[in-house]
Amino acid sequence: MRVEIITIGDELLIGQVVDTNSAWIGQRLNGIGASVQRITSISDDMQAIKAAIADAAARADVVLVTGGLGPTNDDITKVALCEYFNCGTVFHGEVLEHIEQLFRRFDRTVSEVNRQQAALPENCEALHNALGTAPGMWFDTGATVIVSMPGVPYEMKSIMADEVLPRLVKRFNAPTILHRTVLTMGLGESWLAERIADWENALPKQIKLAYLPAPGRVRLRLSAIGADEQRLRSELGHQVKQLWELIPELVYGFDEDTIESVVAHLLRKRNMTVCTAESCTGGTISQMLTSVPGASNYFPGGVVTYSYGSKMRELGVLPQTLETLGAVSEQTVVEMADGARRKFGTDFAVSVSGIAGPDGGTPDKPVGTVWMAVAGPDRTVAKKFLFGDNRERNIERSALSALNLLRKEILKS
Amino acid sequence: MRVEIITIGDELLIGQVVDTNSAWIGQRLNGIGASVQRITSISDDMQAIKAAIADAAARADVVLVTGGLGPTNDDITKVALCEYFNCGTVFHGEVLEHIEQLFRRFDRTVSEVNRQQAALPENCEALHNALGTAPGMWFDTGATVIVSMPGVPYEMKSIMADEVLPRLVKRFNAPTILHRTVLTMGLGESWLAERIADWENALPKQIKLAYLPAPGRVRLRLSAIGADEQRLRSELGHQVKQLWELIPELVYGFDEDTIESVVAHLLRKRNMTVCTAESCTGGTISQMLTSVPGASNYFPGGVVTYSYGSKMRELGVLPQTLETLGAVSEQTVVEMADGARRKFGTDFAVSVSGIAGPDGGTPDKPVGTVWMAVAGPDRTVAKKFLFGDNRERNIERSALSALNLLRKEILKS
Repeated sequence: MRVEIITIGDELLIGQVVDTNSAWIGQRLNGIGASVQRITSISDDMQAIKAAIADAAARADVVLVTGGLGPTNDDITKVALCEYFNCGTVFHGEVLEHIEQLFRRFDRTVSEVNRQQAALPENCEALHNALGTAPGMWFDTGATVIVSMPGVPYEMKSIMADEVLPRLVKRFNAPTILHRTVLTMGLGESWLAERIADWENALPKQIKLAYLPAPGRVRLRLSAIGADEQRLRSELGHQVKQLWELIPELVYGFDEDTIESVVAHLLRKRNMTVCTAESCTGGTISQMLTSVPGASNYFPGGVVTYSYGSKMRELGVLPQTLETLGAVSEQTVVEMADGARRKFGTDFAVSVSGIAGPDGGTPDKPVGTVWMAVAGPDRTVAKKFLFGDNRERNIERSALSALNLLRKEILKS
Repeated sequence: MRVEIITIGDELLIGQVVDTNSAWIGQRLNGIGASVQRITSISDDMQAIKAAIADAAARADVVLVTGGLGPTNDDITKVALCEYFNCGTVFHGEVLEHIEQLFRRFDRTVSEVNRQQAALPENCEALHNALGTAPGMWFDTGATVIVSMPGVPYEMKSIMADEVLPRLVKRFNAPTILHRTVLTMGLGESWLAERIADWENALPKQIKLAYLPAPGRVRLRLSAIGADEQRLRSELGHQVKQLWELIPELVYGFDEDTIESVVAHLLRKRNMTVCTAESCTGGTISQMLTSVPGASNYFPGGVVTYSYGSKMRELGVLPQTLETLGAVSEQTVVEMADGARRKFGTDFAVSVSGIAGPDGGTPDKPVGTVWMAVAGPDRTVAKKFLFGDNRERNIERSALSALNLLRKEILKS
């Protein structure tokens, strides 16, 4: 199945928006054994859209188009599709009903431009957009499938996952591709590759390994392709187990896990609780913990203590600790974690204090220096990290590492 | 000057790497009044590369190619360019010298594959790559300029800035393109479009408007194209002012502003401070406030009070308030904000309590119901929102709306 992606929008060409949709689609298509041959980004221009669709349709089996389906005048993809197929539109009652439903929830009446979103080219099937007013469209010419979706990432993803991928699998009889992902933290990509080189070289040829690095983490994705799903699944499971046994201390989860979902799962299973005491992460850890539905079961709350004063008043950090050792020190994060654990009466407390940058670094403690601690029922442990000079990534890596330290302490408790 | 970008690399098509190069190039080209017509991503495949270059050269004045210039076998852009131009290579002594210099810095000897990087198609000019071994290449056929650069972002950026942009400015007499963006919150895309329809329809034809929606926000981008930069700038400024006067209560910033940077700027200008008291946003607001460098100047800290107990203990919310009105109520968020303001001794406090979902909704207070308050020197205001049923977006929209409410209260203080 040869696929081309066309993304429409001036904002992509002038660089105001980075096209992340295409990478997401590319990954998902891989999951059904399809490969993207070409990605084309063009402006909201009638001729450009029609020409790009015609060119892509001549080369590919499937053309996925995103963008330009909003209700306003600059969104012209639907008109371009009508001109391309030389057809008019028909009204879809069930689409209008869905639009009206969305509007009712917000106590608003449907405007005429939104009502018009229910009019679709006569030769297409409507694809349900659970999260927005612009439906997707599925055209099948026999030779080529052309799909049009909104450019808003969460709407596109929902239509792809629920509507487009299942239809493509059915339409093209795709071979089975299975993926398992092993999630690691604590070792960079190249060192990790050295650690697992022997195992990787011995992989059977129907299983491929990909390294997917992200700040502070490396995901190892194993893909198996073949006809016999059951055999592939058992082979994959076997290799995942072998890999995990090679690097148990680096693996924090599998597949769709996140470090926060793993921590949440461990706490709920043990009926235990955690609170947070954050300085440089500024609330990121509690934000991650509470991003998991049902967080109130194990998370009563936390404090963000950005100033010396709040560290002392809210957490009982001693003035002499801050004066002699500074806010970014082992003693400070230990006192923060112990103080938070007392305050919230939880089983665990996690604390972080560091220099996220760009300012505040010293020769002793350069930007990227971060201390973190976890206080638990039996002990309080602290750990120091030296990250880089990018504020955003320092905050992200601090939060991830702190949650990983918490995970390890829960497992030891 | 019509420009097309071609990015080469399998990693882009399978979604392992997001193409951020194109957005960066698009922004930079805008700065010299050039506009990108199309971005094409293709794999490291000889026929695909040659065809993409031929197609782009037939449409554009300039074709910028990135990727496929590494020393290994899967990098074939240079060979493809030789075949496209039907020419051989010549050796560039100054390029080899630079490669040898780079290797000396790392105490390595130049391998044969790296030496070969100094052999370039005979009809090109070498573009100095200060940060890597693969030089850029500049081809000028008279009709079209074709430029080839490495795909490594920092190498590409250095060649673009130092070599390509100055040459393009000299080679072409392009019109000026200017952009201004007006950032709005509080009204959906279609209602906004209705509100400003008369103004939009009266825009002079050299100015175009684009709607860029994101959860909870709509950015309105005005683009002006012409020859006279000064006149365009003043015309754009005039239209931005007109638009702002139409919808002043919806505009929270301009261009590269974010709601958190706008709030940070207002607080610093007034030498005022803020703290946070968060329930359903779980730390997102403090995380956003502290994402701005220098946040310690106006943000001493905040609390995340997820449980009833922590709301009472940390913020002094009255038991009878929680019992009779519930945690998601006007009175609760008012007491949270007032309590936080007292606790941290700040000028302002912002509080949020709501039902992010997926669970916890009732007929009275469905998922998406969110109360927020801002306590300030003169008064405490509260506001209720009804968002949707997606936990992540409810949290994001709550945090954005709370910061916007804070912004308005700072302006009124």
